[in-house]
Amino acid sequence: MKLFGPCLSRRILRKFLMKSGFLFLVDTVCCTRMLKDPEHQVAGHMAKDGRLGPLVDGEGRFFKPFQSNGRGEDEAKFYESFSSNKNVPDHIRGYFPVYHGTQVLEASNGSGKFPHIVLDDVVSGYQNPSGMDVKIGSRTWYPGVSEEYFNQCLKNDRETTSVSLGFRHAGFKIFDHKESRFWIVEYKVVHRYKVDDARLALRKFVSSNSLADSIPDCAFASEVYGGSSGILAQLLELKAWFETQTLYHFNSCSVYMFYENESISMKGGHGARAQVKLVDFTHVLDGDGVVDHNFLGGLSSFIRFIKNILES
Amino acid sequence: MKLFGPCLSRRILRKFLMKSGFLFLVDTVCCTRMLKDPEHQVAGHMAKDGRLGPLVDGEGRFFKPFQSNGRGEDEAKFYESFSSNKNVPDHIRGYFPVYHGTQVLEASNGSGKFPHIVLDDVVSGYQNPSGMDVKIGSRTWYPGVSEEYFNQCLKNDRETTSVSLGFRHAGFKIFDHKESRFWIVEYKVVHRYKVDDARLALRKFVSSNSLADSIPDCAFASEVYGGSSGILAQLLELKAWFETQTLYHFNSCSVYMFYENESISMKGGHGARAQVKLVDFTHVLDGDGVVDHNFLGGLSSFIRFIKNILES
Repeated sequence: MKLFGPCLSRRILRKFLMKSGFLFLVDTVCCTRMLKDPEHQVAGHMAKDGRLGPLVDGEGRFFKPFQSNGRGEDEAKFYESFSSNKNVPDHIRGYFPVYHGTQVLEASNGSGKFPHIVLDDVVSGYQNPSGMDVKIGSRTWYPGVSEEYFNQCLKNDRETTSVSLGFRHAGFKIFDHKESRFWIVEYKVVHRYKVDDARLALRKFVSSNSLADSIPDCAFASEVYGGSSGILAQLLELKAWFETQTLYHFNSCSVYMFYENESISMKGGHGARAQVKLVDFTHVLDGDGVVDHNFLGGLSSFIRFIKNILES
Repeated sequence: MKLFGPCLSRRILRKFLMKSGFLFLVDTVCCTRMLKDPEHQVAGHMAKDGRLGPLVDGEGRFFKPFQSNGRGEDEAKFYESFSSNKNVPDHIRGYFPVYHGTQVLEASNGSGKFPHIVLDDVVSGYQNPSGMDVKIGSRTWYPGVSEEYFNQCLKNDRETTSVSLGFRHAGFKIFDHKESRFWIVEYKVVHRYKVDDARLALRKFVSSNSLADSIPDCAFASEVYGGSSGILAQLLELKAWFETQTLYHFNSCSVYMFYENESISMKGGHGARAQVKLVDFTHVLDGDGVVDHNFLGGLSSFIRFIKNILES
């Protein structure tokens, strides 16, 4: 069962929003601050070829335009449900971007006003964050989807590492300390990644020589992946929740992990401020009392890869 | 990569076996004991419509005829590999039937001599065992299979609870204490099970009134599922191994759980002798350093169902 009912076209969106009352901020707050393209997005729907992209206000807010075919409405509904769900432990909330309702804003390409989901900009305050988006689960389709969507997902799952590894890269941006610039790898490239590429990318993510052809030095592995508050510790805490939670099934959802390069050399692990956030909730379903085994299995596999890097 | 190379037709099997030398018992030991159909098999390939079925000798051995299309050879190869794999912890071996090589035997239907895998008969010594076969994983296909096999598996996974629950029933046999007879449910019936049916069957498995239409009493839940050596404890021990093991991927493999009814009323949990075994290894792949996320996810979901029964 789809979490929030049938998809809605944009034409009837306004009527629906008024009736349901869940978009309390829509049309009531119009942002007058200067919005701009986010510098640090690594995957997801970016402004390109006429498609709307997200915006940031430079003061800590991230504005994600509603995705088409009802996905934006579904994602907003998820955030509404999640924000008010008393069964979600507080320590787990920290792994989700804070939600601030929705707003109708001038689109990133100036083509008119569109509803946006308003979130905390998770990399606000980071100077040179390296970020990596990893889609979790060996299956991105789920019962009840159209045959067209099912076939599209299945094809992507088989072409990428989703089936073999239980996760796939969706894009990343890594700061190369030797060359003082970012190495940016987009969806089209990572879509062709095989198992060894996926493994290598996770090593390069914590290396100072990511742009070089040589063996990644994993210089920051212990600061970023390791430690009591590093990526691995966070992933394990998330996993512990997924072992028991039956509230939601996070189909096609990503782990977004990022850290600060600016201060990592000086301050080490604490300076890295490495964080994990779950992002992209356009296909979340009601868990109906069943563990999200697809996400849990993929997350376990991903964790094993991170552990291997720390152990090697 | 298929664990043990290309499938072999039976025509060239003998030559292959001689060369590879792994079927050390073939043709050298011919069983002269009286073999018979197993009383307690609940799923898998039974003797039916001319198909060969397994045999037991009544003295603790189970003879499984090689399945067609090379699957028998693959399964024997798995047992050979697993038996000699020093990376498998001893406490994990106990969850697999003990392997005693292979033997060429007169088939169950008297149609000639065929190779069989020789295993411990896991229910030997049980008088009235209730048994349940649950196929683990939301996906029974795997990379590298033929499109025909892929489509057949995908269809079955979608039609059953595999996709939604991460496991599906494959058949069971439950002793009804009120009526002193078995309730046997075969593959054709459980194939149509929905989520609620799957949940109900797990409750009936540990009830004394499984044949009745009334609510299952779960009279033996704590003796069979609970306790320090019950089904749940065993499943958790298995799961702990699956969290880290990257030796094998157990595609289309089942958890077979069983217990003794004869003495459960008198002796309680100890009398139940509840056990979990993994069975059916015709589609096991080399793990290649990757966690078996498909099995692990499904097993985690299955464990949640067992826990729910114990908690309710």
